[in-house]
Amino acid sequence: MIRVAIIGASGYTGAESIRILFRHSQAELTYLTALPEECGPVEEVFPEFRGRCGLAIEPLDLDKLSRLADVALCCLPHKVSMGFVPKLLDAGVKVIDFSADYRIKDVGVYEKYYQKHTDIGNLAKAVYGLPELFREQIKGTNLIANPGCFPTGAVLAMAPLLKEGLIETDSVIVSSVTGASGAGKNPSSKFHFPNMNENLFPYGIGVHRHMPEMEQIAGEVAGTGVQILFQPHVGPFDRGILSSVYCRPAKGLTNEQLQPLYNEFYKAEPFVRVCKTAPAVKDVAGTNYCHVFPALVKGQLALFSAIDNLVKGASGQAIQNMNILFGVDEIMGLK
Amino acid sequence: MIRVAIIGASGYTGAESIRILFRHSQAELTYLTALPEECGPVEEVFPEFRGRCGLAIEPLDLDKLSRLADVALCCLPHKVSMGFVPKLLDAGVKVIDFSADYRIKDVGVYEKYYQKHTDIGNLAKAVYGLPELFREQIKGTNLIANPGCFPTGAVLAMAPLLKEGLIETDSVIVSSVTGASGAGKNPSSKFHFPNMNENLFPYGIGVHRHMPEMEQIAGEVAGTGVQILFQPHVGPFDRGILSSVYCRPAKGLTNEQLQPLYNEFYKAEPFVRVCKTAPAVKDVAGTNYCHVFPALVKGQLALFSAIDNLVKGASGQAIQNMNILFGVDEIMGLK
Amino acid sequence: MIRVAIIGASGYTGAESIRILFRHSQAELTYLTALPEECGPVEEVFPEFRGRCGLAIEPLDLDKLSRLADVALCCLPHKVSMGFVPKLLDAGVKVIDFSADYRIKDVGVYEKYYQKHTDIGNLAKAVYGLPELFREQIKGTNLIANPGCFPTGAVLAMAPLLKEGLIETDSVIVSSVTGASGAGKNPSSKFHFPNMNENLFPYGIGVHRHMPEMEQIAGEVAGTGVQILFQPHVGPFDRGILSSVYCRPAKGLTNEQLQPLYNEFYKAEPFVRVCKTAPAVKDVAGTNYCHVFPALVKGQLALFSAIDNLVKGASGQAIQNMNILFGVDEIMGLK
Amino acid sequence: MIRVAIIGASGYTGAESIRILFRHSQAELTYLTALPEECGPVEEVFPEFRGRCGLAIEPLDLDKLSRLADVALCCLPHKVSMGFVPKLLDAGVKVIDFSADYRIKDVGVYEKYYQKHTDIGNLAKAVYGLPELFREQIKGTNLIANPGCFPTGAVLAMAPLLKEGLIETDSVIVSSVTGASGAGKNPSSKFHFPNMNENLFPYGIGVHRHMPEMEQIAGEVAGTGVQILFQPHVGPFDRGILSSVYCRPAKGLTNEQLQPLYNEFYKAEPFVRVCKTAPAVKDVAGTNYCHVFPALVKGQLALFSAIDNLVKGASGQAIQNMNILFGVDEIMGLK
Repeated sequence: MIRVAIIGASGYTGAESIRILFRHSQAELTYLTALPEECGPVEEVFPEFRGRCGLAIEPLDLDKLSRLADVALCCLPHKVSMGFVPKLLDAGVKVIDFSADYRIKDVGVYEKYYQKHTDIGNLAKAVYGLPELFREQIKGTNLIANPGCFPTGAVLAMAPLLKEGLIETDSVIVSSVTGASGAGKNPSSKFHFPNMNENLFPYGIGVHRHMPEMEQIAGEVAGTGVQILFQPHVGPFDRGILSSVYCRPAKGLTNEQLQPLYNEFYKAEPFVRVCKTAPAVKDVAGTNYCHVFPALVKGQLALFSAIDNLVKGASGQAIQNMNILFGVDEIMGLK
Repeated sequence: MIRVAIIGASGYTGAESIRILFRHSQAELTYLTALPEECGPVEEVFPEFRGRCGLAIEPLDLDKLSRLADVALCCLPHKVSMGFVPKLLDAGVKVIDFSADYRIKDVGVYEKYYQKHTDIGNLAKAVYGLPELFREQIKGTNLIANPGCFPTGAVLAMAPLLKEGLIETDSVIVSSVTGASGAGKNPSSKFHFPNMNENLFPYGIGVHRHMPEMEQIAGEVAGTGVQILFQPHVGPFDRGILSSVYCRPAKGLTNEQLQPLYNEFYKAEPFVRVCKTAPAVKDVAGTNYCHVFPALVKGQLALFSAIDNLVKGASGQAIQNMNILFGVDEIMGLK
Repeated sequence: MIRVAIIGASGYTGAESIRILFRHSQAELTYLTALPEECGPVEEVFPEFRGRCGLAIEPLDLDKLSRLADVALCCLPHKVSMGFVPKLLDAGVKVIDFSADYRIKDVGVYEKYYQKHTDIGNLAKAVYGLPELFREQIKGTNLIANPGCFPTGAVLAMAPLLKEGLIETDSVIVSSVTGASGAGKNPSSKFHFPNMNENLFPYGIGVHRHMPEMEQIAGEVAGTGVQILFQPHVGPFDRGILSSVYCRPAKGLTNEQLQPLYNEFYKAEPFVRVCKTAPAVKDVAGTNYCHVFPALVKGQLALFSAIDNLVKGASGQAIQNMNILFGVDEIMGLK
Repeated sequence: MIRVAIIGASGYTGAESIRILFRHSQAELTYLTALPEECGPVEEVFPEFRGRCGLAIEPLDLDKLSRLADVALCCLPHKVSMGFVPKLLDAGVKVIDFSADYRIKDVGVYEKYYQKHTDIGNLAKAVYGLPELFREQIKGTNLIANPGCFPTGAVLAMAPLLKEGLIETDSVIVSSVTGASGAGKNPSSKFHFPNMNENLFPYGIGVHRHMPEMEQIAGEVAGTGVQILFQPHVGPFDRGILSSVYCRPAKGLTNEQLQPLYNEFYKAEPFVRVCKTAPAVKDVAGTNYCHVFPALVKGQLALFSAIDNLVKGASGQAIQNMNILFGVDEIMGLK
């Protein structure tokens, strides 16, 4: 049994991780922590789990963590996270970090989009936890940077073409729409029901922090720099991200090559489905699947993907990483 | 031209009143006030009105009010409202008050559900602004208590039967579902989109403040005490209230009598439509209509009504009252 | 391993049953049938199951059923169902029937609300599959009438009081709101998105077929006739039913007695949670739970329950019944 | 008074046109037609208009049209429309056609995306009814091709830059999300509430008929060919289109130039607002406004617009065109 702690368990990704672990036959929740004001019995913090979990959410105690857990899912926000991760590692647990703090390898880029980085040593060692691309590296690490929700969908939509050098990398557009759970649990005017309902709007124009993360990973796959304009939007639904990627193909690429290329690239992947028609967010809601569909239209590529932002875009992918890390069946708890 | 001020213009009912007054050919907005932190040009507070209103929302100045307005729509919350209304009246304007402060005639009942009443003198003079029942009294007053949204729908659903003594008044159930705009503009966990979306729940069980208001008005219509159990619910839509009223008929009432009775009672009403099938909130969204439908089922009455909570349930009804008060066509601005 | 067939697998309850069975460690899907025009590989009929189920949905072949299955979940509509159930039983499988055909014991009542009954022999033998009330009978039958979604929620909300004779049974109101999945998979004007979205309305006024079913089961629990006025509404969400039951208490009942009474009644139930505050449909969405909350308000009872109409209201309850029938852990596949 | 007929009045754009005309002080509805099976009193076809319109919807009679109307809003689908328009013109009325039949000047392009064109004579004379670009031509015509909803939003988002030659026209991406009312009134599986709710997906990949229309109009503004990849998506809301246009600027363009350029271009326009932040569909819902916002991000242009697809994208724009055509105030009925 893998003994799992969740650090920062009181938010949406904490709840989703708990839900998935209930179904996992080789892992058990042993320790849940949060800020003091968000602590309490699980069934009070999350009424939907009443009668299913006897644990309480407590303030973090590193000794306790050390005794009780093999791995910590660290669901803290960026900046806060890098304050805790070194301590979690020192406590002898493996860490899967949900924040952006260990995703961006170039400290200068990180500091431009976020703030000063205070744990550069661990940053260098962290592995980017996108199993479809970095499964082997994940197996041997103590610290996984769990990918951002938008980069997960966007990179999986274009990876087969990037890998083969079939995309012109100087000008890629990623236009995504996320459900409102992406904004987290704290109430705000923008996400007040009477504002968000029947609404849809772009945000983070030109400044969204997932842009450099996408460029880094896309660049690693392509083996060359990739220039991405990433534009997120938010729409009136709970879960899911639909990413539409527009770019120019390398010369000679035909529409007929796309399906075989994608099928080959993803043939062994348990959570990527290459679709024959447009994907829809409802088809993947509540699942760890990423549906992808590539098309060549009037000489341009239009590549689509759909994921559940809280599952493949966060907690499901973290459990998938955990499964790889501990050598259990990768799909455990996720199908 | 009726010169209209709105006191507390920065919330949903303020915005809805502004929207209606744009279409009113015999009234003009002259003065808008709010708390200092919510002031600013209308087109900044309400981007949807950009280019349509040159006014700014300002802190209240009673002299200015006195010079600029004939009537004040007072959109303040209860308790706050009764602190201002005497001053507004002293400034020489007529007042249409959206709060509960002048609706409940029995001070003891008011104080049980709300708090100490500090303006009992004006309370006694105020007229309850439900035009279908109190049109004549409205014409001659300086202070109108604009009805609550739930009482408006519930009372209109049963008034024809109450009037004729055809309902057993010892046990009336009013079970209503409102859209989320009823909760106002301030963000909260309950109305955070990821919580309210795909959700529906009862609230205010046994304690909702619209219960005594309903009982008072129903009692006035019936000419006898009416015992009402009122249960509100909230659902995942912006606007509208569907009220389902369940009660026992007086002996001998038949289903065939219902439509003629309702048609007769409402025949001259511009905003009540007696339907031949079940009403739906979408049919009245954005309008000042109340759709009613009575049925006798297995010996019990099931009476339904649908209104838009922000229009017939608040701002539309206020403008209807204003039209009556100033002797202009009652439907002005509302059709 | 329990070998499970689904007859009429192409609709919402079929899909939900498949989804639950994927997680069931002691049951396996072996045979899926539907009308010829709805047949095909599971992953084409339900793209969300791609890669998870190698079966095809085929036209029913009774020999095949006989060889391949121990139990049939019969997801056919009423009238169609009673044409097939005798043949399924003859094929030697146990049957859990989702339709209304075997729920109403009084043939006269059935024929008033539905149509002529053509399988009266099996009707007499069928057990009503509400485990919280009829667990023992379920264990020994070959034919379970899986309860209607509305009766499930309504009866569970009042059963503890009915059992103790604490409700006046001459006049019970059940006012429910269901999500739109309750209408099934066939497109119609009423459920066309631009009509159903931002809408809520009552339907089936006075004629809904779940009314006599509720009365029958409530009557069995109470040991006396129960008169119910049942009024369903539909709202703009996918899943869930919130039932609000209004009735008069027997003399002397106090609010303080309610929680202990409900806790005691449901103390051993794995899927009923007695709540301390109002239930919400989102808390039970996707689960087999029924949340109940009783209150005594101004001398009247207001009893609330929330279920997921497709799970506890259909497929989840069917699997719960199947688990009881085959003697495996009742919660298998459902938590 | 302008006497207005609506041909094909029974759908969403017919209803929206009726709603707007109720508020128009210099136009009156005089004649409404539809297919025989969709005829009947207005208040039966559209219960929301009960008591507001005494007309009936009737089968088309050209003599009657000729006697009763000055202008016909032709709300028929493409192909059907070009069968009727010549007759409407012959009846002596001006025609504002909502279909695509008179929008695309190049018959070859029209026939590639639609079908054989049967009224090439009138096609040549028709004026494309986007007032912001073609106001002068609109004044002098008898036949207006009312623009498609997507082209309206997309072209207004980029027109100021196209006009000045500040966009590289070889590769423009238009990625739009529309509300579900865009699909029309006929029920279908895709728009069945339980499918469309909580969903979002792309459609018409590579083949959407608004693509050549956009290219034609963008090309006219730019004075040169414009290559557009147009990708529509549909989301779970009633009304609105958010268009995100991605393209490369001409050399030297700076972010600082954008707002002045857009403000200057649209300074006299009553229905275009240049925003300082991202537009949202809810801000324009129910209005004839188009909100636009241009940004230069990492050397690429991201241009946004929001409209209500049924108002500025259909019926509102038609009335705006009608006002221009008859020389009345352009905003009549629309503010």
